[in-house]
Amino acid sequence: MNVERLQDRLRQFAEERDWVQFHTPKNLVMALSVEASELLEIFQWLTPEESQEVMASPRAEEVKGEVADILIYLLRLTDVLGVDLDAVVAEKIGNNASRFPAVDL
Amino acid sequence: MNVERLQDRLRQFAEERDWVQFHTPKNLVMALSVEASELLEIFQWLTPEESQEVMASPRAEEVKGEVADILIYLLRLTDVLGVDLDAVVAEKIGNNASRFPAVDL
Amino acid sequence: MNVERLQDRLRQFAEERDWVQFHTPKNLVMALSVEASELLEIFQWLTPEESQEVMASPRAEEVKGEVADILIYLLRLTDVLGVDLDAVVAEKIGNNASRFPAVDL
Amino acid sequence: MNVERLQDRLRQFAEERDWVQFHTPKNLVMALSVEASELLEIFQWLTPEESQEVMASPRAEEVKGEVADILIYLLRLTDVLGVDLDAVVAEKIGNNASRFPAVDL
Repeated sequence: MNVERLQDRLRQFAEERDWVQFHTPKNLVMALSVEASELLEIFQWLTPEESQEVMASPRAEEVKGEVADILIYLLRLTDVLGVDLDAVVAEKIGNNASRFPAVDL
Repeated sequence: MNVERLQDRLRQFAEERDWVQFHTPKNLVMALSVEASELLEIFQWLTPEESQEVMASPRAEEVKGEVADILIYLLRLTDVLGVDLDAVVAEKIGNNASRFPAVDL
Repeated sequence: MNVERLQDRLRQFAEERDWVQFHTPKNLVMALSVEASELLEIFQWLTPEESQEVMASPRAEEVKGEVADILIYLLRLTDVLGVDLDAVVAEKIGNNASRFPAVDL
Repeated sequence: MNVERLQDRLRQFAEERDWVQFHTPKNLVMALSVEASELLEIFQWLTPEESQEVMASPRAEEVKGEVADILIYLLRLTDVLGVDLDAVVAEKIGNNASRFPAVDL
């Protein structure tokens, strides 16, 4: 995944539709949270076992669409904020490794 | 960003901590939504203008941490579901281009 | 508002539709969160000023519907959990009064 | 539950702390959604069965606190919006009764 190229494309997409005025960090964070909840809605009444079969269910396409929307808003948000997505994920994974030591299984 | 390599690393991380039992799609979607809301919490009382300055504020590091957590759960979820993140984002951007035509500015 | 009478009615409603099997605390909390996000969706692109005029907008009925759904799931959840809604709110308001002293304006 | 009396008390509470400036409908909806997710966080890794025992767990007090916060923001929001909480819930329950007929069990 080329994060910068996707962010360029999404920025241009917003500019061409005069949406930049709406894309404050506050609004983009709301939109991201709303998309995450639309994904949650698909799973809310499923048992744990049913949730594991969701991609073989009639709602599989919806799951893909919501997952894409979440990533799109995350890319747009980090572009607007100037946050380096690759760097923050690498740092967090490093921190988690110290914070949660592996266990003997 | 190498999505597959990150997903491999996160899968191994979960296995080494005996967390795979908790990582049903249903639970991962909940965790993703919770992280999105932790980001929302940072912005809830900010004006639109203040939200644009958040990376120069004392909460900048928290923003980075939440953004990373959202991406980590999204990577883990799509790995468990077998969803190709690159493909669904490319498809969604294509669909949005047809759905929302560019305007004359 | 008669909380107990509403809870009785909602419990009977769920029983008559064979929904009790789905109404675990975990699922009801997810549903409550989803409804809160459907309300959020209405406000995501509004300016603070526009949000103050939402009840004079075409989305006023939707706002009412989402507000009702949030309360309905909150009543159902607290019934299933055996939490006394009146008591916990009274206690929280008391705690907030100590935690956040009034200021001289 | 006396909805109006609680709303009066919460309005006065906000006024005495100079918080009314922050209590736009948009911000209150964000806060409500954040509180719903803090409740979700408690349940995210629980099995359905564990979620039914949460009030006998060490997190019971947290559940009560989050439930109270959700109701408090819902009361504050509907006060600011001028939405009659009793009326919208009664209407929604009526609509649901027509929309979802009872089944023969």
